Amino acid sequence: MSRIRLGMIGGGNDAFIGGVHRIASRIDDRYELVAGALSSTAEKSRASGAALGLDPARCYGDFAEMAAAEAARPDGVEAVSIVTPNHVHYPAAKAFLDHGIHVICDKPLTATAEDAQAMEQAVASSDALFILTHNYTGYPMMRQARAMIAAGEIGQVRLVQAEYPQDWLTDTLENEGVKQAEWRTDPARSGAGGSVGDIGTHAYNLACFVSGLRGAELAADLHSFGAGRTLDDNAHVMLRFDGGARGMLWCSQVAPGNENGLKLRIYGEKGGLEWKQEDPNYLWFTPHGEPPRLIRRMGAGATDPANAVSRIPGGHPEGYLEGFANIYTEAADAIRAVQSGTARDDAMGVLPGITEGVAGMAFIRACVASSQQNAAWVAL
Amino acid sequence: MSRIRLGMIGGGNDAFIGGVHRIASRIDDRYELVAGALSSTAEKSRASGAALGLDPARCYGDFAEMAAAEAARPDGVEAVSIVTPNHVHYPAAKAFLDHGIHVICDKPLTATAEDAQAMEQAVASSDALFILTHNYTGYPMMRQARAMIAAGEIGQVRLVQAEYPQDWLTDTLENEGVKQAEWRTDPARSGAGGSVGDIGTHAYNLACFVSGLRGAELAADLHSFGAGRTLDDNAHVMLRFDGGARGMLWCSQVAPGNENGLKLRIYGEKGGLEWKQEDPNYLWFTPHGEPPRLIRRMGAGATDPANAVSRIPGGHPEGYLEGFANIYTEAADAIRAVQSGTARDDAMGVLPGITEGVAGMAFIRACVASSQQNAAWVAL
Amino acid sequence: MSRIRLGMIGGGNDAFIGGVHRIASRIDDRYELVAGALSSTAEKSRASGAALGLDPARCYGDFAEMAAAEAARPDGVEAVSIVTPNHVHYPAAKAFLDHGIHVICDKPLTATAEDAQAMEQAVASSDALFILTHNYTGYPMMRQARAMIAAGEIGQVRLVQAEYPQDWLTDTLENEGVKQAEWRTDPARSGAGGSVGDIGTHAYNLACFVSGLRGAELAADLHSFGAGRTLDDNAHVMLRFDGGARGMLWCSQVAPGNENGLKLRIYGEKGGLEWKQEDPNYLWFTPHGEPPRLIRRMGAGATDPANAVSRIPGGHPEGYLEGFANIYTEAADAIRAVQSGTARDDAMGVLPGITEGVAGMAFIRACVASSQQNAAWVAL
Amino acid sequence: MSRIRLGMIGGGNDAFIGGVHRIASRIDDRYELVAGALSSTAEKSRASGAALGLDPARCYGDFAEMAAAEAARPDGVEAVSIVTPNHVHYPAAKAFLDHGIHVICDKPLTATAEDAQAMEQAVASSDALFILTHNYTGYPMMRQARAMIAAGEIGQVRLVQAEYPQDWLTDTLENEGVKQAEWRTDPARSGAGGSVGDIGTHAYNLACFVSGLRGAELAADLHSFGAGRTLDDNAHVMLRFDGGARGMLWCSQVAPGNENGLKLRIYGEKGGLEWKQEDPNYLWFTPHGEPPRLIRRMGAGATDPANAVSRIPGGHPEGYLEGFANIYTEAADAIRAVQSGTARDDAMGVLPGITEGVAGMAFIRACVASSQQNAAWVAL
Repeated sequence: MSRIRLGMIGGGNDAFIGGVHRIASRIDDRYELVAGALSSTAEKSRASGAALGLDPARCYGDFAEMAAAEAARPDGVEAVSIVTPNHVHYPAAKAFLDHGIHVICDKPLTATAEDAQAMEQAVASSDALFILTHNYTGYPMMRQARAMIAAGEIGQVRLVQAEYPQDWLTDTLENEGVKQAEWRTDPARSGAGGSVGDIGTHAYNLACFVSGLRGAELAADLHSFGAGRTLDDNAHVMLRFDGGARGMLWCSQVAPGNENGLKLRIYGEKGGLEWKQEDPNYLWFTPHGEPPRLIRRMGAGATDPANAVSRIPGGHPEGYLEGFANIYTEAADAIRAVQSGTARDDAMGVLPGITEGVAGMAFIRACVASSQQNAAWVAL
Repeated sequence: MSRIRLGMIGGGNDAFIGGVHRIASRIDDRYELVAGALSSTAEKSRASGAALGLDPARCYGDFAEMAAAEAARPDGVEAVSIVTPNHVHYPAAKAFLDHGIHVICDKPLTATAEDAQAMEQAVASSDALFILTHNYTGYPMMRQARAMIAAGEIGQVRLVQAEYPQDWLTDTLENEGVKQAEWRTDPARSGAGGSVGDIGTHAYNLACFVSGLRGAELAADLHSFGAGRTLDDNAHVMLRFDGGARGMLWCSQVAPGNENGLKLRIYGEKGGLEWKQEDPNYLWFTPHGEPPRLIRRMGAGATDPANAVSRIPGGHPEGYLEGFANIYTEAADAIRAVQSGTARDDAMGVLPGITEGVAGMAFIRACVASSQQNAAWVAL
Repeated sequence: MSRIRLGMIGGGNDAFIGGVHRIASRIDDRYELVAGALSSTAEKSRASGAALGLDPARCYGDFAEMAAAEAARPDGVEAVSIVTPNHVHYPAAKAFLDHGIHVICDKPLTATAEDAQAMEQAVASSDALFILTHNYTGYPMMRQARAMIAAGEIGQVRLVQAEYPQDWLTDTLENEGVKQAEWRTDPARSGAGGSVGDIGTHAYNLACFVSGLRGAELAADLHSFGAGRTLDDNAHVMLRFDGGARGMLWCSQVAPGNENGLKLRIYGEKGGLEWKQEDPNYLWFTPHGEPPRLIRRMGAGATDPANAVSRIPGGHPEGYLEGFANIYTEAADAIRAVQSGTARDDAMGVLPGITEGVAGMAFIRACVASSQQNAAWVAL
Repeated sequence: MSRIRLGMIGGGNDAFIGGVHRIASRIDDRYELVAGALSSTAEKSRASGAALGLDPARCYGDFAEMAAAEAARPDGVEAVSIVTPNHVHYPAAKAFLDHGIHVICDKPLTATAEDAQAMEQAVASSDALFILTHNYTGYPMMRQARAMIAAGEIGQVRLVQAEYPQDWLTDTLENEGVKQAEWRTDPARSGAGGSVGDIGTHAYNLACFVSGLRGAELAADLHSFGAGRTLDDNAHVMLRFDGGARGMLWCSQVAPGNENGLKLRIYGEKGGLEWKQEDPNYLWFTPHGEPPRLIRRMGAGATDPANAVSRIPGGHPEGYLEGFANIYTEAADAIRAVQSGTARDDAMGVLPGITEGVAGMAFIRACVASSQQNAAWVAL
């Protein structure tokens, strides 16, 4: 199959996530990066593009110009990756969706609830695919866990314990010129959620993806420990799910010693599952009354849903980039499928999209609203 | 020093905790078990006592008889261990405290708030010591952690994450004739708290002991997953401490795969600490911006507060019984000290006593009250 | 059952192992320490005995005097624990065995091959029991592993990988006045083996105990890294067992970071087992082609041989002292059994005794001999 | 920088390692796969090439034809990856080296000692680079460990403990039609070493790479547990290094539960290092007398040599493919450097090449020779 012609919005400077998207798109050789609005000016964009081997003529100063120009080319981009700060997600996505160009967008969906609603409409009005890179859902063992729960291997789910501690904002780096810290602690660029938006949404999304549950309501206690910080850098959240399961979610950017400690534990009437993002090739399965079993990627007990998104034999660890690549590769399959006439929803499969994006925004909104009401329950 | 003459109330049948107390009292050879009201009748008590090598004449049918008889003997018990179900704690303790006999009592303090208040008065009216076996505070690495925090090694505490998952009530064993399950799920014998009383109090006590913080208020979502179960078998709790620290506490008896998964993580402005009860000889210390360090019992980095309650060199694991024995041995020291004229408070040192018992009851009460108000904040 | 009257030879000063034996003897309340030749003079012995609450009249200046005196008493010791440096094991044991007093002796059996042979004869000539405290065989999960292998759960054993790294002799502490380092690096007191005698024997004994195999021959490369050190502080050993299994054994006292890193891995045609002494409540079972299973002490999958030597429920860790206590408790059972007429061999059960002691001496001798021949194979 | 035009020899069928090389070459976007002799016939090669998007005209039936044709093209391959069974390595490499085309070759170097010698000459006679994919040297934490040892952080090295257990040949898969098992157990295609050639060479190479030591001699006990298997499936090896360090190496393909359990522990006079391939983002550093420290990829304590070969922040695990990609990316740098006039040795940096290949062959030869002499010492 020919490679998909890909453009990128943002990701031109030292931004961590732009490079991640590019590697993820290359791992399975399904994309070719051909254009970009990588930075805020055409000049900077060309400089960034040159380093990536892009044709200078296809390095644009802004996404609107790019969308128009690329849509007009016979060899224009088929899809774009949007890897900007959150407040740019919506306008950029809309520009391409309106031209029928598929969008792969970083999370959270948008910075504001208004934008989220608008995004939902933009997606609804377009024939193009909208994929949200909730990349942790791409880890093979998360596919394994989801399939096991769906198959009833732990019985009806009772408890969902999710956490995502980090430590990088323990000190107020936003006052020390660290760009990542600046925009992620700035409500204008990040939205109303700090840690809940940046990492809480990941944990919540993964919890729902794996458990198969939908959140019903939550009670949240958000706090900013960093002096002068507006957005939350720590959140304690109690969760109630449709159907009666309960849970907790803790996300933090001020927990020293934790890098990206995303961890998910789900317990049902018959057993439990436990997984940590930092050691992603291992899934603990604890059938009640039996010895805990360690299911390893491509090892005994791992089944099709996990094996299908694995590349190499067990014992040779795959990591974050491979999990991210799974989203890209499935997106490529989906793009080719809709190009061949498959219905958009059918093409999406388990890929996270607008629905998950809206759910994530609802999570952020509910967290902030609950916290403002001293942790009262707020519907999701 | 001569051994302390010890009596035991409860612990006569197959009760897990009676045997634990007896072993704990023997490990450092500071006690001699000489009398008991081990069971609910004199006959059963004598049978249980015979197995322990007790003089039949000192095997009593009830604690009141025993208190009177032993107080009258020149060689009567100096102290008693109370290892009954919770609702017996108060009357039994009072019987001995009133005779000036020292009491070592299992937790939680009592089954009801009324009893707790009465217990507080009974202790205040007596010259005898009252020690509550919050045994996890006896683990060397918990002493280490407490000392490190007190010394400022992690800076001002921001976050306290405590959890204590178990799985033994995943099924409704109380309907299958399992005695432990029967009384622990029975409000009449356990009190208003299920998991919050049985294990939540342990987690809360340990969190306060190590962090040096006092709880200010909490919001709790208690639930019974077991069909027909009255008391909570799972609790999600959000915590706020005096001084601004926040935390979460999760305790559960329905989380398959977890045996006694008590875990404590505390984060401050400068670093963090992490500890798991099931691997108690290890303490993670994560100074912010430095590689995590593993402090091992009696190993490099372990200091006096831990080493003083260790018996054997590093790499030879001590366990639950040794931690429990530390409480007993310090109690023996305290008893001998008050017998020599030391003031009761001075003698107690870091031993948990009535204050911690009352705090634990307040925790249970607040959890239940909060949950009844749909997780509203309730003062501690 | 009444407690066994116990004496102790050695263990009077700050010696680590004397205290361990005393605690181990107390945990299950089967012994009463009543006499001792705790130190090298009567005066020191009385001082040590006073601290332990012994009758001064039964604190002896040497083991010969003690053996004679205690044998003459109607309430004399029924058994003695020998916890001296290795070169005293034989004469002390013989003194008591000759009086029909049971002996519980620390390992290795003796300092020299001559003494070992003499010990074998002394045991053969006596009716008393001789128990060698290869205490690691007392860990519940080692009993579990042994039973699983005996039951064929991993199929015929192919590989036995044993190791026991420590780091305490990384520096030459024997030149800095550290008593433990002095005698353990002194051939006159320790015998011909350094690390192979002190810890290699433990690893070898455990490997044989669990696998059920007998060593056939070995090739060993012993080395002293500590400057001026005579005895080996590191040993690399290749093993061949009767029946065709092979293995490796590494023991070291100069491997920084390792405390008592005894680890055993055994692989058969159908599966494997893995265990580490520092985390003794866990046993990995890896049936070939299935997910690894974690068997926990008193947890699912743990069976009678392990549960019978466990005291408390799963998730509350037992440790080194409890494993050691299992040897003492089984020794008490064995002593009472022979006193009741049971044949000595029948009473021993799985307790390590003279046979294991002789095998350990053969291991040391073969290691030293092989190393002197540049790691040629030497029969065991 | 423009991408390097790459060809591939082998890797056309379901071979695990061909796909790995292709992904590794893509991750950092430094190569473009343009030609191949992917299978043993032109037809199969074209089929495989089609799946990879190769021009059918550049899909060759054998490497000789390909070398001639590509060398003649102005846009011919600049480098080739050789991912065939071992016995093809030499003739294929020679064909390209003779045309000045750079070679990236899978390990071990060759199947026979004769071929190894010939390969050495072919490399010496060529101006092209020869890179051997000892990919484990590409893991960031292995770079970290090497740099720390070179900087003296653990003092002079005393001990090197290496192991690489697998379990995939526990059963005799070679009799059940498993292709990987067939050629890897066939001396004609694999050479004289079974497990020692396939995985022992990896462990030995890594041990030398990290420690900075050269092997002096070894004593090896090789064995085939699989019925009817000619080549070793398990090897126990004792090592002596130049300068006096000693070590052990165990590799096995019959150790159930182990996938790719490559593990390296190195101990010096001042500290130790420990690393496991299956959890590659962690490096334990154990300075003697201090608490063990966990150095994490891109985390505190990780330095330039590791960070320079890392792509993403700490806590987002990199894995096997990224480590492999580091070899490819450094090879790309080296190729561009020699094309710009840098001397070949200077361009190689720490990349494994012919020297390491020859050392690996010496290791295999010595293992086999030693084992044939009943584990006598054989010089390396």
